[in-house]
Amino acid sequence: MLFAVRMDVDLPLDMDPGERADTLARERVYSQKLQHAGKWPHIWRLVGQYSNLSILDVEDNEELHDILSNLPLFPHMAIEVTALVRHPSDITIAGRG
Amino acid sequence: MLFAVRMDVDLPLDMDPGERADTLARERVYSQKLQHAGKWPHIWRLVGQYSNLSILDVEDNEELHDILSNLPLFPHMAIEVTALVRHPSDITIAGRG
Amino acid sequence: MLFAVRMDVDLPLDMDPGERADTLARERVYSQKLQHAGKWPHIWRLVGQYSNLSILDVEDNEELHDILSNLPLFPHMAIEVTALVRHPSDITIAGRG
Amino acid sequence: MLFAVRMDVDLPLDMDPGERADTLARERVYSQKLQHAGKWPHIWRLVGQYSNLSILDVEDNEELHDILSNLPLFPHMAIEVTALVRHPSDITIAGRG
Amino acid sequence: MLFAVRMDVDLPLDMDPGERADTLARERVYSQKLQHAGKWPHIWRLVGQYSNLSILDVEDNEELHDILSNLPLFPHMAIEVTALVRHPSDITIAGRG
Amino acid sequence: MLFAVRMDVDLPLDMDPGERADTLARERVYSQKLQHAGKWPHIWRLVGQYSNLSILDVEDNEELHDILSNLPLFPHMAIEVTALVRHPSDITIAGRG
Amino acid sequence: MLFAVRMDVDLPLDMDPGERADTLARERVYSQKLQHAGKWPHIWRLVGQYSNLSILDVEDNEELHDILSNLPLFPHMAIEVTALVRHPSDITIAGRG
Amino acid sequence: MLFAVRMDVDLPLDMDPGERADTLARERVYSQKLQHAGKWPHIWRLVGQYSNLSILDVEDNEELHDILSNLPLFPHMAIEVTALVRHPSDITIAGRG
Amino acid sequence: MLFAVRMDVDLPLDMDPGERADTLARERVYSQKLQHAGKWPHIWRLVGQYSNLSILDVEDNEELHDILSNLPLFPHMAIEVTALVRHPSDITIAGRG
Amino acid sequence: MLFAVRMDVDLPLDMDPGERADTLARERVYSQKLQHAGKWPHIWRLVGQYSNLSILDVEDNEELHDILSNLPLFPHMAIEVTALVRHPSDITIAGRG
Repeated sequence: MLFAVRMDVDLPLDMDPGERADTLARERVYSQKLQHAGKWPHIWRLVGQYSNLSILDVEDNEELHDILSNLPLFPHMAIEVTALVRHPSDITIAGRG
Repeated sequence: MLFAVRMDVDLPLDMDPGERADTLARERVYSQKLQHAGKWPHIWRLVGQYSNLSILDVEDNEELHDILSNLPLFPHMAIEVTALVRHPSDITIAGRG
Repeated sequence: MLFAVRMDVDLPLDMDPGERADTLARERVYSQKLQHAGKWPHIWRLVGQYSNLSILDVEDNEELHDILSNLPLFPHMAIEVTALVRHPSDITIAGRG
Repeated sequence: MLFAVRMDVDLPLDMDPGERADTLARERVYSQKLQHAGKWPHIWRLVGQYSNLSILDVEDNEELHDILSNLPLFPHMAIEVTALVRHPSDITIAGRG
Repeated sequence: MLFAVRMDVDLPLDMDPGERADTLARERVYSQKLQHAGKWPHIWRLVGQYSNLSILDVEDNEELHDILSNLPLFPHMAIEVTALVRHPSDITIAGRG
Repeated sequence: MLFAVRMDVDLPLDMDPGERADTLARERVYSQKLQHAGKWPHIWRLVGQYSNLSILDVEDNEELHDILSNLPLFPHMAIEVTALVRHPSDITIAGRG
Repeated sequence: MLFAVRMDVDLPLDMDPGERADTLARERVYSQKLQHAGKWPHIWRLVGQYSNLSILDVEDNEELHDILSNLPLFPHMAIEVTALVRHPSDITIAGRG
Repeated sequence: MLFAVRMDVDLPLDMDPGERADTLARERVYSQKLQHAGKWPHIWRLVGQYSNLSILDVEDNEELHDILSNLPLFPHMAIEVTALVRHPSDITIAGRG
Repeated sequence: MLFAVRMDVDLPLDMDPGERADTLARERVYSQKLQHAGKWPHIWRLVGQYSNLSILDVEDNEELHDILSNLPLFPHMAIEVTALVRHPSDITIAGRG
Repeated sequence: MLFAVRMDVDLPLDMDPGERADTLARERVYSQKLQHAGKWPHIWRLVGQYSNLSILDVEDNEELHDILSNLPLFPHMAIEVTALVRHPSDITIAGRG
């Protein structure tokens, strides 16, 4: 089940550099683990923004909320969630059906 | 070069049914041709909306504008374009580089 | 899987009275059939608005989109979808778990 | 009398951990006491947000304001209140009337 | 129970003059009947707008929705409802309590 | 001359408790003095908000600005001013005229 | 008593040319009469907009509403009203006081 | 050449009182010097706001930017600039032309 | 004197094709004449929009308003005007000064 | 490939003056180096704002993101990116084609 998720990061300007580096490193590990598991099939950076557009592929809303609320950057993010379905013109539907 | 494009369709309520069916059929053919060409790698329907979220993969801005402004539904759409780049945490970057 | 859905109805002022009555009757039947099936557990009218706030309980995003896009009033509605999960303070979770 | 209430929580990043844990514990007790009393029949978490959508069932506006303004998290919340009535298509009206 | 209600009127420019005059006359009678009944204690015109700010004093949400949805101008209005309670600094509370 | 004024209060979370209590006490005295003088005929609390909707009855814009800019809470408020006139359907106009 | 008033004109594209010319001519006469009477001391066109920013100098809110609601273009305008007072740094206050 | 400029002041609550008084005094001198020079023909206070609406009469955009960016309150202001021209219905055009 | 101008075109769907073609042809001639005269140094299309971003170089506000209000597409455009000055980091300032 | 980029700068009021001066100096050098390289053909100041409107001419989205995210002021800026293409009425297209 697919969701588009936009995440806008807003780190405090006076954040401790060590804490900042550590949080970003943990975020990266966390995201990549979910990418390898197939739960986070796409992640793009928005040009000129400290933001990403991601596609999440989850079992249900509960799994999506677990993933998002456990992001190391969660306290520093504004998150927007949009539920998706396959588009009727998508040429890959036939092959999947 | 990647762009996220959101398209919100707003067809007139009194549109001629034949014109409507024809426009939608041409839109489908047009989109699928670009999907097969690798220019339109993703298209998703937004749940509960007559809208889609698409990822376009184009040579440059000119190609993107050509594609969008020639959509059969273009006169009936609100379109939002967001430039994307690969995310530094994306696990597929290594394999592509 | 739960979703909050707000639907704002905007019927054309010059809609044919017969078509209007017929559409509303079909909407009612459609909604009540889904309520009886347990798919649409709550529907409330917003005071002073031609709008409702509904809770839908569906298998997945696909089922939700099918339900919404087949509403007889769909061409005359603005729809807003919000994905929900059970709240950790909800006293009914224990009994359901 | 029913109201939909959306609450968006915004705790200061530098809040004392003890005060934070205490406030959240009191919020939970407070909410659950009202749930048991039938005053707060529904509470859902919004996916990816530190927010909830709740349905409150109160005697009047005064009771609703008392409940909301005494929330332990009240100073840290943005609250949106929407008055509701039963929907004419609601299948449970007959049984309640 | 008090509610502030803002009503913005938007009549079609090509509305039949007779229908227009009749609707406005019925709106006036309807409003004044509710004012005499004490249900609509205040109504003010917003300067430079075809809008009013009203205070309604009703038994409950159901009564408020009945009043608003039966306004002759209801199909031509945008309505905003805000639930009110007496203010703790209001000097008239003591006399009413 | 009537104005609707909405005031949204936003006190700093770390405000000194003594200063806070003193400011609120002075606000109450200030407001009630104007209520007794007939300058502030109505004040209501918005449900679930630290906000009020007030009706001010003043000689002119200057008096209104003097009243508002001298509110003890003025530095902590967002204020919205709307000029009002008597509504043509108001049943009390005749008696006042 | 001073008010800033912004008026945005939106004439229907299919308005009868004669009716249009007549309405604009009457608007001009109406505005100039009020300018000569000192009620409308300033009127400026916004660059690139079919809009004006005006300063009105009136006895009270009632007079302002009478002036605005009788504008020949009133049914075709969005109007925004802002109450003004003399600024404490205004060098002309002394001479007027 | 005329511009409407709205300035909304937002001074930090914890600003040093001496610095605050000094900044406001310098702002006043600065504004009055430009008023005397005919560059700042109008300045009004918005009722209930720490804001002003001003009309500036300048040689060109460069002069306007110089004036605004050197305001002592510039770092504490949100500024909105609107280019104006004389209105075709303005009765003073003839006399000025 | 420079201004950034964004123009969003919204032609009626049922516009007469001949009138449409004629209006667009006149718009093109009009724009190119001003480009040749150096008054309209830049015009860009926004990707995926029926909109342009233009830089106008004019004597004063009056000339800008004359140019914009005489655009053949003016009745079908939303226009946004932003006054510009040379940026202090612009490397071409020295050569122009 | 052209992009319009609007940058709104918001430096903390309590920023260390030396750090502030250093950041602005580095920003200037950085910008001018890109201007000399032809990557940043235009930069204008918005009148009355601590903001600029720039045109960037880059190879692709990646280059644009690299340029923007390495701006010394990047942590203190809100950035808005709009993809551009040459306009069909642009008189310089012929010469470039």
